[in-house]
Amino acid sequence: MGAAKKIGRQTIAFANPPVILSAASIVGPKEGEGPLKDYFDRIAGDMYYGEKTWEKAEQKILQETMELALSKAGLKPADMDFLLAGDLSNQIIAANFTARSLGIPFMGLYGACSTMYEGLALGSMLIDGGFARYVLLGACSHYATAERQYRFPTEQGVQRPMSAQWTVTGSGAVVLGKTGQGPRVTHAIIGRVVDYGEGDPNNMGAAMAPAAADTIVRHLKDIDQPPETYELIITGDLGKYGRELVIRLAEQQGIVLGTNYQDCGVLIFDESQDTHAGGSGCACSATVTCGYLLKEMKAGRLKNFFGLGTGALLSPCSCQQGESIPGIGHGVVVQAN
Amino acid sequence: MGAAKKIGRQTIAFANPPVILSAASIVGPKEGEGPLKDYFDRIAGDMYYGEKTWEKAEQKILQETMELALSKAGLKPADMDFLLAGDLSNQIIAANFTARSLGIPFMGLYGACSTMYEGLALGSMLIDGGFARYVLLGACSHYATAERQYRFPTEQGVQRPMSAQWTVTGSGAVVLGKTGQGPRVTHAIIGRVVDYGEGDPNNMGAAMAPAAADTIVRHLKDIDQPPETYELIITGDLGKYGRELVIRLAEQQGIVLGTNYQDCGVLIFDESQDTHAGGSGCACSATVTCGYLLKEMKAGRLKNFFGLGTGALLSPCSCQQGESIPGIGHGVVVQAN
Repeated sequence: MGAAKKIGRQTIAFANPPVILSAASIVGPKEGEGPLKDYFDRIAGDMYYGEKTWEKAEQKILQETMELALSKAGLKPADMDFLLAGDLSNQIIAANFTARSLGIPFMGLYGACSTMYEGLALGSMLIDGGFARYVLLGACSHYATAERQYRFPTEQGVQRPMSAQWTVTGSGAVVLGKTGQGPRVTHAIIGRVVDYGEGDPNNMGAAMAPAAADTIVRHLKDIDQPPETYELIITGDLGKYGRELVIRLAEQQGIVLGTNYQDCGVLIFDESQDTHAGGSGCACSATVTCGYLLKEMKAGRLKNFFGLGTGALLSPCSCQQGESIPGIGHGVVVQAN
Repeated sequence: MGAAKKIGRQTIAFANPPVILSAASIVGPKEGEGPLKDYFDRIAGDMYYGEKTWEKAEQKILQETMELALSKAGLKPADMDFLLAGDLSNQIIAANFTARSLGIPFMGLYGACSTMYEGLALGSMLIDGGFARYVLLGACSHYATAERQYRFPTEQGVQRPMSAQWTVTGSGAVVLGKTGQGPRVTHAIIGRVVDYGEGDPNNMGAAMAPAAADTIVRHLKDIDQPPETYELIITGDLGKYGRELVIRLAEQQGIVLGTNYQDCGVLIFDESQDTHAGGSGCACSATVTCGYLLKEMKAGRLKNFFGLGTGALLSPCSCQQGESIPGIGHGVVVQAN
């Protein structure tokens, strides 16, 4: 067994790439009408999912997704060494209460919408480092809980500018294992916080794009390969405008991203759904990765991808106190078995 | 180089125990009048610390503490492989903005008041696992930002029950290294979320005690040693009543904790300071560990300790929706060089 290798400044190449033993996704009704609807394991009939509040619905969705991932892998909570999870709600309550139900040693993460990929990167390190045989990880978000927490009371019906994105309701979860059958996480890269001064909570794609470009460029320079080395490079939730900005920012640093560069937020909704710039939220990259990407890989239609969770480190309090919105992007490389 | 070993269900024994190369602490004015005042590196003259808001003061305190830890270790941000940090503010803004300033690849953590120890445990795994040579980690809290976020507007002057604790203003930070001189982190244990149904945000010691007892008992059973194996077992911020509850809960599970069991929240203030049950907040365990414990160790007066960060996974939103307050406890064992 060799040791993990650091390539360049930030990229980690795993000595024994951890295996994605299973993945699960549950989405809300709107996502269940979108172009990726056939890829999700369950589609909620409404935003309450049988609960009395949106927050409880969000928690239930995360917990069910994790239970589904465990059951697909044929494993139980007691088999897991660690649970890594987070969400957008203050004090990551969906993750905390899910951890309470599952009883697995738990590390709470907060990477805003990048949390799924923070978990994938970290979980892979914990396995490759010899600290775990199995790690359960996931992230969730809910349109209505996020909207009223970050922006306006949902009932107020404020008009949304065209740069706004739509927080995805749903959750994705993965069981990572030291050995077994499935795609492997070969590389991970932890992002830096980057801030170009964007201050509009209705234009988060622009706030996150510089951090996403920083991580993509850094990773490609670390491995000294062109973007075409991956069949797909995909960011988490930059939306239409954020994606265009990443292309421009990467180009300024000598990296020309081609048609193999996509964004989960662009894919999850179509124009007719009136979501403006696209999807966002922890569940955007989580459900597209656990639903679409990993199922395409299972079907043999995708050989590898470099996925990047992108987070806007937005806080209503910091915005009110005049701060801009910094972003972050964490990435992992997944290779089909 | 051997591989890390899992002992029992949850305890990890590091193959090459990471070194605490430096530690720094800054506290607020009240903590600077308490019994541990001579151990802290800096004491803020007032709660604003030269900033316009309490939130900005909190962020500045965290950043200065991290810069101080780096400078004590003779290292720069660019030398660090990872930054691990979190705090109590919604969206961990103090940590995010500190990460923006330092430019180090950043993983945001949320473990409520256990965050310092979540970082110590995780940072040690990242180093022992071969993913990092240096990790900078820390946590902070601020009485006034926490009070107005979690309980009542600070200006309202609500009377506090005797079970209430006082959120510590301050920050602790540590530079962990793969090699070098200093105390070593020999073991880590990641806690499970435990909930006995306590629902009063003014009695967080009771909410956290079951999780703390769970981790302490589990660890001692994992290593199959009595509590006296450590010179000191210390919890993060249970306060007077929470500490007593841990002693009772451990006893029910066959572990008799003696006078070598203490709590950071009990030590940081004295009776005359009118803090009721004691200190709490991320900074409670962070400043007592980085100030008092590691300085006592440096002076040769403390050979080892099992420290446990304790977190109440409290959310104003979940409390309003009728939920109880689950707790968590993460621990590390530190041995003098």
